[in-house]
Amino acid sequence: MANKQLNDLLGYGDLKIYQMKDSFCFSIDSVLLANFISIGKKSKKIIDLGTGNAVIPLILAYKYSNVSIVGIEIQKKIYDLAFESIEYNRLSSKIKVLNEDINNLSKIYPKDSFDIVVSNPPYFKYEKRSLTNESITKTIARHEIKVTFEEIVKAAVWLLKENGTFAFVHRPDRLFEFLDILKKYRLEPKKIQFVYPKMGKECNAILVECIKNGNSGLKIISPLYVHDRDGYTDEILNMFNRK
Amino acid sequence: MANKQLNDLLGYGDLKIYQMKDSFCFSIDSVLLANFISIGKKSKKIIDLGTGNAVIPLILAYKYSNVSIVGIEIQKKIYDLAFESIEYNRLSSKIKVLNEDINNLSKIYPKDSFDIVVSNPPYFKYEKRSLTNESITKTIARHEIKVTFEEIVKAAVWLLKENGTFAFVHRPDRLFEFLDILKKYRLEPKKIQFVYPKMGKECNAILVECIKNGNSGLKIISPLYVHDRDGYTDEILNMFNRK
Repeated sequence: MANKQLNDLLGYGDLKIYQMKDSFCFSIDSVLLANFISIGKKSKKIIDLGTGNAVIPLILAYKYSNVSIVGIEIQKKIYDLAFESIEYNRLSSKIKVLNEDINNLSKIYPKDSFDIVVSNPPYFKYEKRSLTNESITKTIARHEIKVTFEEIVKAAVWLLKENGTFAFVHRPDRLFEFLDILKKYRLEPKKIQFVYPKMGKECNAILVECIKNGNSGLKIISPLYVHDRDGYTDEILNMFNRK
Repeated sequence: MANKQLNDLLGYGDLKIYQMKDSFCFSIDSVLLANFISIGKKSKKIIDLGTGNAVIPLILAYKYSNVSIVGIEIQKKIYDLAFESIEYNRLSSKIKVLNEDINNLSKIYPKDSFDIVVSNPPYFKYEKRSLTNESITKTIARHEIKVTFEEIVKAAVWLLKENGTFAFVHRPDRLFEFLDILKKYRLEPKKIQFVYPKMGKECNAILVECIKNGNSGLKIISPLYVHDRDGYTDEILNMFNRK
């Protein structure tokens, strides 16, 4: 792949990550999600649905000693980036990646196999006019072509142990829809954080943590701002350990 | 009433408002709501369901010249405060109050009579153990004894013109429930603002504006903080014109 490059995963020690400048880079939303999840102290089996170049598994493996993580990625080209990043960072004892369709996971893993399911899903509904000038790789990562949010939730419910955690990020314009889907599959939202690009701007991402068959009881925690007048906010810089 | 007192409605010119220190004072949430509603330029017929001592009508009548407002209050003692406040401020040409049950409004007003329905509803579900040491007046204002949120929504839908606005405030722990109710009655949320007591704290109030039979398209506007290290935030002080 001509445009493949090895970048520092800033803030996470010596971690490096493979990206493709023209067709696939990790998004900041994945970094926010990796820092939003409550992991706890017990050892945790985690699965990341639509892992991309495995940025979430890499961060979690860096931050926590008690995790073993599987990343699922349907696009072979991106899966290869993830695989090579994990090899490069010598993290293959903690992270596995699988080049697989999320819709097939119920044939691969028994029910109730994981403690935590995490996902930064494709944000946009797929319509013919959605096909932009961007690469097909990028389009599949961003649009619900190979998998819809409901299919991800269905897979999450299969994979999760009773009272396991499903954490994801999505867009505000899908809020009512994703709440309906969570309800349908009995994933109870327990923690929500609204993300704003900067003070005075509208929310552009929502972080959500649910419990499988959990009791009701929602906390809307303090909002997160990505930028302030001087660039990234301290909260974001902390995630990259750059303060 | 022994404990009735006339207070300045700070920040709204010479406006004064009657309160009962022991059993009924307006809440800051009503002030937030009165400042959250989009009024527009055309003349507007507004109805406030559960008006209390009419703090929302008083603020709207002060801020806008193009409004005529009805306040509905079921508790006679509080209705009397509202009535006297309106008389005192010589606003009875712009504001009427009615000592009535919200559940009776469909017999009093024809369908589609108002442009805007506003409500700061009782926040808490009523259970026997809800009966605290507070006065019955306060308990009725705060608990769903005389009216539930669904009944308020039902009344709002009856009263509102097509594409009219329903604006309310509620608590985060009722979020999923009130979204379900809005959906059931085809009130489409268009603008939401999350309110936090201060930075770093959890959300404790949600302001919502819906359109009757509106198209989907939600904006989650910049959050509101009530306090900072120095007391009230500038945003709140602005509402009271105290900056």
